Amino acid sequence: MSNRTESYLVGLVGDGVMPSLTPHMHEREGDMQGLRYLYRPIDLLDLGLPADSVGRLLQSASTLGFNGLNITHPCKQLVLQHLDEVSPDALKLGAVNTVVIEAGRFIGHNTDFSGFAAALASGLPGATLERVVQLGAGGAGSAVAYALLTAGVRTLDLVDVDPVRCAARAAELAGFFPGSTVTARTTAELPQLMSLADGLVHCTPVGMAAHPGVPLDLDLLESRHWVADIVYRPIDTELVRGARAKGCEVLDGGRMAVGQAADAFRIFTGLEPDADRMRSHFLELVAAEEVAA
Amino acid sequence: MSNRTESYLVGLVGDGVMPSLTPHMHEREGDMQGLRYLYRPIDLLDLGLPADSVGRLLQSASTLGFNGLNITHPCKQLVLQHLDEVSPDALKLGAVNTVVIEAGRFIGHNTDFSGFAAALASGLPGATLERVVQLGAGGAGSAVAYALLTAGVRTLDLVDVDPVRCAARAAELAGFFPGSTVTARTTAELPQLMSLADGLVHCTPVGMAAHPGVPLDLDLLESRHWVADIVYRPIDTELVRGARAKGCEVLDGGRMAVGQAADAFRIFTGLEPDADRMRSHFLELVAAEEVAA
Repeated sequence: MSNRTESYLVGLVGDGVMPSLTPHMHEREGDMQGLRYLYRPIDLLDLGLPADSVGRLLQSASTLGFNGLNITHPCKQLVLQHLDEVSPDALKLGAVNTVVIEAGRFIGHNTDFSGFAAALASGLPGATLERVVQLGAGGAGSAVAYALLTAGVRTLDLVDVDPVRCAARAAELAGFFPGSTVTARTTAELPQLMSLADGLVHCTPVGMAAHPGVPLDLDLLESRHWVADIVYRPIDTELVRGARAKGCEVLDGGRMAVGQAADAFRIFTGLEPDADRMRSHFLELVAAEEVAA
Repeated sequence: MSNRTESYLVGLVGDGVMPSLTPHMHEREGDMQGLRYLYRPIDLLDLGLPADSVGRLLQSASTLGFNGLNITHPCKQLVLQHLDEVSPDALKLGAVNTVVIEAGRFIGHNTDFSGFAAALASGLPGATLERVVQLGAGGAGSAVAYALLTAGVRTLDLVDVDPVRCAARAAELAGFFPGSTVTARTTAELPQLMSLADGLVHCTPVGMAAHPGVPLDLDLLESRHWVADIVYRPIDTELVRGARAKGCEVLDGGRMAVGQAADAFRIFTGLEPDADRMRSHFLELVAAEEVAA
């Protein structure tokens, strides 16, 4: 069995995962730690497989000797029914992005949440977390909000294009964190909310290469605000650049991407990743893409 | 797609494959060539899977990004019906031990045959191949006999414990090689056959750690005979030691094991393996096992 325990085989299941930088981050960190590490993207769109094939893929991966899988859209919820064990945080979030395979058993975790928490701690140390405005309450937004509340945010104002989803999410989070206030808000309230907030977190697709623009009027930013973006393609979104120009402390989206990958690496291997090294590698990868684009 | 093409994920499907040295040989040669190479044993006994699950395993391996699979007992024949293409030699042998996965297509090869041919050429260069006695006409024996006839053996005497299987195999091989004579023989004929033969090839389990002993009376060996064994655990079988003591030129079973792995490596990667380096590594692995035993 030595062959099995000395090497790591991991995959990423989801739609459109071929361009993901996660496989490269894991493999490079594995190399640096002297491990045999191979990480395969498993693209449901390329394979013509529906989202609910995730259970069968887990079984196949177990049979073929995978140590684990990362799971992304559209399978993060669907995967739950196939797991033997789920971490308490992932269970509350209702979403799993990391499954460890141990002797045929499937154990689920959520490193979107923990990765953002780690990003916040390393990238914005000492930031005031009393009151925060968050834009976007989808899947990634839920994990981020959970991380913010876990980190001690007392008042979280959630804004989303879908008011029904936003209200449901706010109510659910408020239930998990009775010591904090979580409120569904509207875009029209942003001027007032930003005047009260310590920081802004952005969790919508706006600012991605395919969705250029800014998610709010940059005039609402003041130098006293910290600003966190989870978009990382490009790494310097219009929001990140605008916030820097205003003198804000900024957390770019790469921090969460790296934090998520570093936590998954730790879960898959039981070894401590070097998050700074992973961040440097990630920035190299993004820079290479931006030159090529 | 760069992640896919720069790294190699391979497996070995069969019963009791966990102790196989093939994964280690491939991974080490991959390392030496600067490739990311991971080779997983997929043990049907451990998994509680029947032999006819090989078709499903091929599909799973393709979905999860494997570049290929080696196939061993009891699936070398069963796998044929699941392939899109089979090499002419593997088709004649009716057995496939190497399947390349290319864009969802399965292409079968037989490197048991080609591996023995390479072993013979590198380990016994210049050996007279006019007339040969072969003990054992099972699956491995078929591949070896096919290699011997391809290498130019004109008279091949096959001996097997199962006379029906032996006669069938001899007739089949004679059909493929009309310029040669292939005859099913019995143990009682060995004294006469050996007196006429240039060399002896051994393809039964006798001499393996679990089946100690010699497959024929060593008194039948003369220094003018060359002797090839395909048993490699231990590497110095009683037959190999006895033949050396008689002054025979000897081909140990490791040569075929390495030849088979080297050919599979070439098929999976398209890159030329360093067979001498693989042989050195193989001998290290066997020596380490023998010390540990």
